[in-house]
Amino acid sequence: MTSEIPGLPAAAISNLEAALKTATAGRELPLYRIMAYQLGLMDENGETLPGASAPPRLHGELAMASAQAAGGEFRAAVPCAVAVELISNFWQIHVDVEDGNTERAGRPSVWWTWGPAQAINAGDGMHALARLALFSLRGEGLALEDASLALRLLDEATLRLCEGEYLDITYQERLKVQADEYLTMAEARSGALFGCAAHMGASMARLTVERASLFGEFGTKLGLARQVALDIEAFWGKGQRDQTQQGRLIAKKKSLPLTHALSSADATTRRKLGDLYVQRVLDPEAIKAVAEMLDGCGSRRFAEDTLARLLADADAALTAAALDRRGTELLRALARRIATARA
Amino acid sequence: MTSEIPGLPAAAISNLEAALKTATAGRELPLYRIMAYQLGLMDENGETLPGASAPPRLHGELAMASAQAAGGEFRAAVPCAVAVELISNFWQIHVDVEDGNTERAGRPSVWWTWGPAQAINAGDGMHALARLALFSLRGEGLALEDASLALRLLDEATLRLCEGEYLDITYQERLKVQADEYLTMAEARSGALFGCAAHMGASMARLTVERASLFGEFGTKLGLARQVALDIEAFWGKGQRDQTQQGRLIAKKKSLPLTHALSSADATTRRKLGDLYVQRVLDPEAIKAVAEMLDGCGSRRFAEDTLARLLADADAALTAAALDRRGTELLRALARRIATARA
Repeated sequence: MTSEIPGLPAAAISNLEAALKTATAGRELPLYRIMAYQLGLMDENGETLPGASAPPRLHGELAMASAQAAGGEFRAAVPCAVAVELISNFWQIHVDVEDGNTERAGRPSVWWTWGPAQAINAGDGMHALARLALFSLRGEGLALEDASLALRLLDEATLRLCEGEYLDITYQERLKVQADEYLTMAEARSGALFGCAAHMGASMARLTVERASLFGEFGTKLGLARQVALDIEAFWGKGQRDQTQQGRLIAKKKSLPLTHALSSADATTRRKLGDLYVQRVLDPEAIKAVAEMLDGCGSRRFAEDTLARLLADADAALTAAALDRRGTELLRALARRIATARA
Repeated sequence: MTSEIPGLPAAAISNLEAALKTATAGRELPLYRIMAYQLGLMDENGETLPGASAPPRLHGELAMASAQAAGGEFRAAVPCAVAVELISNFWQIHVDVEDGNTERAGRPSVWWTWGPAQAINAGDGMHALARLALFSLRGEGLALEDASLALRLLDEATLRLCEGEYLDITYQERLKVQADEYLTMAEARSGALFGCAAHMGASMARLTVERASLFGEFGTKLGLARQVALDIEAFWGKGQRDQTQQGRLIAKKKSLPLTHALSSADATTRRKLGDLYVQRVLDPEAIKAVAEMLDGCGSRRFAEDTLARLLADADAALTAAALDRRGTELLRALARRIATARA
């Protein structure tokens, strides 16, 4: 697979793919085949898949691009890229069990293939493996102090993911969820790991703590913006919809336009929404009706305005980091892709 | 709760309890109340439980006792003790979901109380929290190099837990499981974290790498011996049985005496065992019949002999570590308790 991002060499993606393969496919116990399946490296029978079928590695690319944009080498951030990709994937395995998603990226999900017990356990193993990947930073000649910072950023982001997921599950059966509460949840659940990726990557380029933190802010707002974009697409997207996001709608997971309508639409619209959301799961047909109501009461517009504001916030953090023109352009191009790519 | 272990001061346990409380009960989001419930610090309504009702902290005690026995201060190993206890408990939360255990330590399990989705997520959060606990080692004045070693030991042990659990789940529906395969599985699943606790504790006392490794060997064999002791008790124990271990039997999880019989009993006994184990779950009444068969074909004796050998192996590693008399006695006393305490 060749990368089309201006400035991030194709070698970056192939280095990342090779490292992911080494981390999982090189081990004998079939437990690691389950992990390799989730990563798109193998099919369910343990046959190697062609590299071209690998899913996008948005978190990993952000880590490597951040290192390069900050004036370093993408290579210095490969262990960080591996670690965030393994965290992202361990978490997808667990979310699929939690939410009952039968598919992930167009293939049967891990729990649907191996059962929930093996899926929970394989996710736990991948979580530990993510952290072990960072220890190879020492081999890259990195100071222990910097490797230790990367470890701490990764653990803090993982804890934030779990805080966000806790709220997401809690909101599922509640109708009284404010847009602000939603944004707090989604910033933790969908922003924290992108923030961590950018922050770690910049730190590997030995940026000052303050400037590296601006990368964290950039990634966090970008990840949140991405989720809002997915929320909008789930209701109004053209063509084939993302299975995971459709599953969220059916399971009554809250999204930004919905929380806006639930708190600010007129009484009649809110009662109609309440009638639909009192069902155990949402009828796929009902989603169309909800989308029309949200459009009618300005919630689509609200979500689109919020998306624009979040992307501007992300860009402001990037500008404040005061990179050279090439670095800024590299991250802007990747940001566009992250904000619009499917889950 | 006062400790009766010769040499480990009562302050060690109270320091550990206070640190566990700080790690979870001090945080606002109700996610942390779920963790505090699992740790025996709170009831399901978030009310603080009296310290006396806290479960044994065998992994944490082993970490602190190892530091002291190795010539250091138990205090230096409190962050390690917190970390291994949080790993042990995150893992119990997940195993209870995986195995469908409705109870844990005499109380409803986390998933039974909050549902599987919140349980999986709370376990993930506790996994990240375990690692963050180790970062406070820096505050204790520990060299970064030593803190980094502790982090790596913890991640490697966690990965070993998952490797063991993978095998345990795989063996569940198989009858052809050799005693050696069982011991490999149980050493990873039940030995690795005790090994990690002892190894980390000794490292905090700045022991040489070689001598600290002997602590790892001691803890690993001890943890494995403990599981074999639980296996024996599950079939032939007097009085009230351990719920988790009984659940394992019913779910057709393999245990050492059973694997011995399945591979070495006469054809008639093996056929009878096969007839029972072809059921989806084992009838609690059938357990008595199995216990009698295992007794009759020497599998109980085999398990008891193995237990004695493993305890001797653990003690040999301890002897090789060449501690002073007080240190050796401290760890021997704790080893007796670990090998016989309920799960």
